[in-house]
Amino acid sequence: MRGLMMDYQLTVPSLVRRAETLHARKEIVDRQPDGSIHRTTYGVLLNRARRLAGALQALGVHPGDRVATFCWNHHQHLEVYYGVPSMGAVLHTLNIRLHPDDLAFIAQHAGARVVIVDAVLLGVFEKFRDRVSTIEHVIVVGAPPADTATRPVDIDYETLIAGASPHDFDAPLDEWQAAAMCYTSGTTGKPRGVVYTHRSIVLHALGLGLADIDLMRESDTAMAIVPMYHANAWGTPYSALMCGTKQVLPGPRLDPASLLELLASERVTVAFGVPTVWTAVFEFFDRHPGAYDVSALRAAASGGTAVPPAMLRGCEQRFGAPMIHLWGMTETSPLGSCARLTEELQQADADTQLAYRAMQGWPVPLIEIRARNDAGLVPWDATSMGELEVRGPWVAASYYNAPETADRFTDDGWFLTGDIVTIDPRGYIRIVDRAKDVIKSGGEWVSSVALESALAAHPAVLEAAVVGVPHPHWDERPVAIVVRREGRTCTPDSLRDFLSPSFPKWWLPDAIEFVDALPKTTTGKILKRALRDEYATYYTRCAAAALVAPAARASPA
Amino acid sequence: MRGLMMDYQLTVPSLVRRAETLHARKEIVDRQPDGSIHRTTYGVLLNRARRLAGALQALGVHPGDRVATFCWNHHQHLEVYYGVPSMGAVLHTLNIRLHPDDLAFIAQHAGARVVIVDAVLLGVFEKFRDRVSTIEHVIVVGAPPADTATRPVDIDYETLIAGASPHDFDAPLDEWQAAAMCYTSGTTGKPRGVVYTHRSIVLHALGLGLADIDLMRESDTAMAIVPMYHANAWGTPYSALMCGTKQVLPGPRLDPASLLELLASERVTVAFGVPTVWTAVFEFFDRHPGAYDVSALRAAASGGTAVPPAMLRGCEQRFGAPMIHLWGMTETSPLGSCARLTEELQQADADTQLAYRAMQGWPVPLIEIRARNDAGLVPWDATSMGELEVRGPWVAASYYNAPETADRFTDDGWFLTGDIVTIDPRGYIRIVDRAKDVIKSGGEWVSSVALESALAAHPAVLEAAVVGVPHPHWDERPVAIVVRREGRTCTPDSLRDFLSPSFPKWWLPDAIEFVDALPKTTTGKILKRALRDEYATYYTRCAAAALVAPAARASPA
Repeated sequence: MRGLMMDYQLTVPSLVRRAETLHARKEIVDRQPDGSIHRTTYGVLLNRARRLAGALQALGVHPGDRVATFCWNHHQHLEVYYGVPSMGAVLHTLNIRLHPDDLAFIAQHAGARVVIVDAVLLGVFEKFRDRVSTIEHVIVVGAPPADTATRPVDIDYETLIAGASPHDFDAPLDEWQAAAMCYTSGTTGKPRGVVYTHRSIVLHALGLGLADIDLMRESDTAMAIVPMYHANAWGTPYSALMCGTKQVLPGPRLDPASLLELLASERVTVAFGVPTVWTAVFEFFDRHPGAYDVSALRAAASGGTAVPPAMLRGCEQRFGAPMIHLWGMTETSPLGSCARLTEELQQADADTQLAYRAMQGWPVPLIEIRARNDAGLVPWDATSMGELEVRGPWVAASYYNAPETADRFTDDGWFLTGDIVTIDPRGYIRIVDRAKDVIKSGGEWVSSVALESALAAHPAVLEAAVVGVPHPHWDERPVAIVVRREGRTCTPDSLRDFLSPSFPKWWLPDAIEFVDALPKTTTGKILKRALRDEYATYYTRCAAAALVAPAARASPA
Repeated sequence: MRGLMMDYQLTVPSLVRRAETLHARKEIVDRQPDGSIHRTTYGVLLNRARRLAGALQALGVHPGDRVATFCWNHHQHLEVYYGVPSMGAVLHTLNIRLHPDDLAFIAQHAGARVVIVDAVLLGVFEKFRDRVSTIEHVIVVGAPPADTATRPVDIDYETLIAGASPHDFDAPLDEWQAAAMCYTSGTTGKPRGVVYTHRSIVLHALGLGLADIDLMRESDTAMAIVPMYHANAWGTPYSALMCGTKQVLPGPRLDPASLLELLASERVTVAFGVPTVWTAVFEFFDRHPGAYDVSALRAAASGGTAVPPAMLRGCEQRFGAPMIHLWGMTETSPLGSCARLTEELQQADADTQLAYRAMQGWPVPLIEIRARNDAGLVPWDATSMGELEVRGPWVAASYYNAPETADRFTDDGWFLTGDIVTIDPRGYIRIVDRAKDVIKSGGEWVSSVALESALAAHPAVLEAAVVGVPHPHWDERPVAIVVRREGRTCTPDSLRDFLSPSFPKWWLPDAIEFVDALPKTTTGKILKRALRDEYATYYTRCAAAALVAPAARASPA
């Protein structure tokens, strides 16, 4: 049935050609490791991307080969973003924050033949480099610091480009072929690779460019604070390439002062960052009143973890610009939903608006959602909880070479996100828990996150975790493990009384245990798995105790 | 290479599902032939679309079959727009303004099995109905006027829907399959059919929805004044479906009073119409000061023919909203370019901005442009003229069953638009002529349109046509045919003197002839073909005359 409309493949080089012809003079500004500001244009940068591709081809890189990056956000990284997929090879971003064991596994599993690494990251790179047998070439960006040595075989990035001929990017590419890949690292199991196609990248670029998302226009200056080793910096480099948007990249300097300086000096209009970055930026901004003119900003996009209402309000108060809450995953390219207000909610009162903007939002065009619990698909009633499933043209259909993960994808073509959500009648998603953390009690689900947040609001609670513990009668029951603030007191009963007005009786933790500290990962996340293991036999141990089935909670339904 | 990202086909039913789940309560408002206002919602309308499809299936309509419409813009027409492609059949819009001979040819050529016709258009329909042998069913929308009779075999649209079961739209569709078709009718040759695919419609909907075009948001109220029988009403019904945009449709009442009433009462935010419609609306608006509150309007989109600067200015002055100049063709779905200002031009002075906004604009993402003359591809210097070629995922690859038109498509995959343009260094297209009208003189091109516009500015000139006439030495030379205003005088020399400061000497028409009237089509367009025929032997006839090669114009180059 081809031949009616043009068989025009959706590919990265088509975006490159567009920027070369229409936007060659638009700027790309980044901060280099030494703190200096580097300025270039799409025209110059894309010519360098072509020469990089020419050089890689000369090194023996073929279509389909993986070219890894181990880099901060800077113009050279953009050159790899644009050049490698356009020659038919696969951009493979490595997350510089991961443990060397994970990095060794990922690079080996992906089969990286070339690694392009920042000189300032050579120290970290060397910790796993020799464990990756597929690496043939290492290309070093920038001058190595005094305490770091390259190996004689390593190639200097600038020397490589200087000596290369531009690639023509003319080989026909199939839009279904791989363009990039990125690994997720959950708290459980091995890292899993997501492979983006040319088609998914271009369609995602269009999605991000929609007026209803309104985060990418030709007239914008976009700053990706989110790392380029995280889900393609939320796809911003490709959407900006398509739109001809000026880009600003912060390099390794992610401290609030450096970020604010760039936001102000480059008159950034849209910036993309996770909530923790914005928290730090806000605090610094408050401590230096009048120091940074960020009046050009028209939107701060955030996501990755939930954006609290106070942060949404704080952004507007400080910057006069809204914070836009996005939801997505590595598996969804990542844009899945956006918490912009619908026309109807634009008429609502401020509190309602804030509540909706703090949700994960409604799905962007071409993304479909549904949620399912043990009883089947859940109604969109803002109350029923189920695991979120998504499908769409930029959602992964599988993990790379990982048949053991097939259960994350349904037979009828949906991806299981692992997020427990409610969906409201308007289609707004609200994440209430992770699937592995939700507590299944008597056929109903209890949100561990909701209980934890409520406990954390008690003046005597420093931090709290709530986990589901196997129970002979109710399948699971919640157990709260609480660290008290120094000098404060509370009892299980006083905490239950505190929770009681906000939750159904059968949600209240049967047991509340006090501990000195909670087990945590190296990045500070509470290790719920360890808690579940520790408390696994809790109800068996105290099977006779009254707290197992108190009268008030006899009938969870 | 499938299996990395989801094989999610880009199809109309995916947009239908989206609107059903997210935007079921959004309104669709239209004016019926009796002038009354009809209000419905996406939820109700899409259920009716499903029942229409169910009924068509029961009538024997199969995937791939053409279902024609002969309708104004109204909610029933939208139901056909959404229902027919979603069942795998092909929406085939017939232009009610065409000559019955053309309509008979088109419907027969397309092979329309079913025609859905407005009762108020039955009179026109009967003029060609019996000449289309493929028609099996005629479905009549609305009650026939007193002077019109349906045939006993004709089916009432409402009765059909009332008795039908909803179609499930569940059959898997290939995004490359036909979804809609529409015929162009040039001034020469037979009408030519353009077949839109599901893929092209969905990608075009995304294109129209981009922030850089900014004509379709969920929060908008969009009014397509442009007929739904013209290039899918510029794709607005599908983009609105995708975005969940409230729609307003004017029905048969295209008089300025009715349009202004709807713009005001429904608080329309974006409206789409050709320049002649806006001219009439502006004039009426001026004659009724204060009568219409159109303050909700944020953009008036126009195209189809060039939008003059005075109209751009006039829109802003009257409505406080910009007019956005779009360019496209039936063959380009139609959105090809948009004359929004780039970030750079947003800093320019008002005159420069107006000049750029009056151009056809820069190509929307995924649309590529180039221009070619006899010497090859022309540089983007705002001066060199060439025929515009385009390619992209929503550009036709061929005309339906018309092998004789293959020369409109290049071997390397570009469509020849027939428009002579210049392209400026920023990629802004300016149409200077139609290919068949441009005058080729001594290896250079002369714009007939530019000369005509200049002549029309002379106080003694009522109207003027400039055509290229065969010349023994220069290939062609321009001849101007002029109608003088009553009571005014001018001579060939005085007109040449008037033109002289604005054009190279060799552009000046060698001959200027005065006539009482110009030959025109029924729709008022000047029949240049007739003029070219009439003047074909002009230079042969006066081969010896001094005006053939005056000294001043001896060297066109």
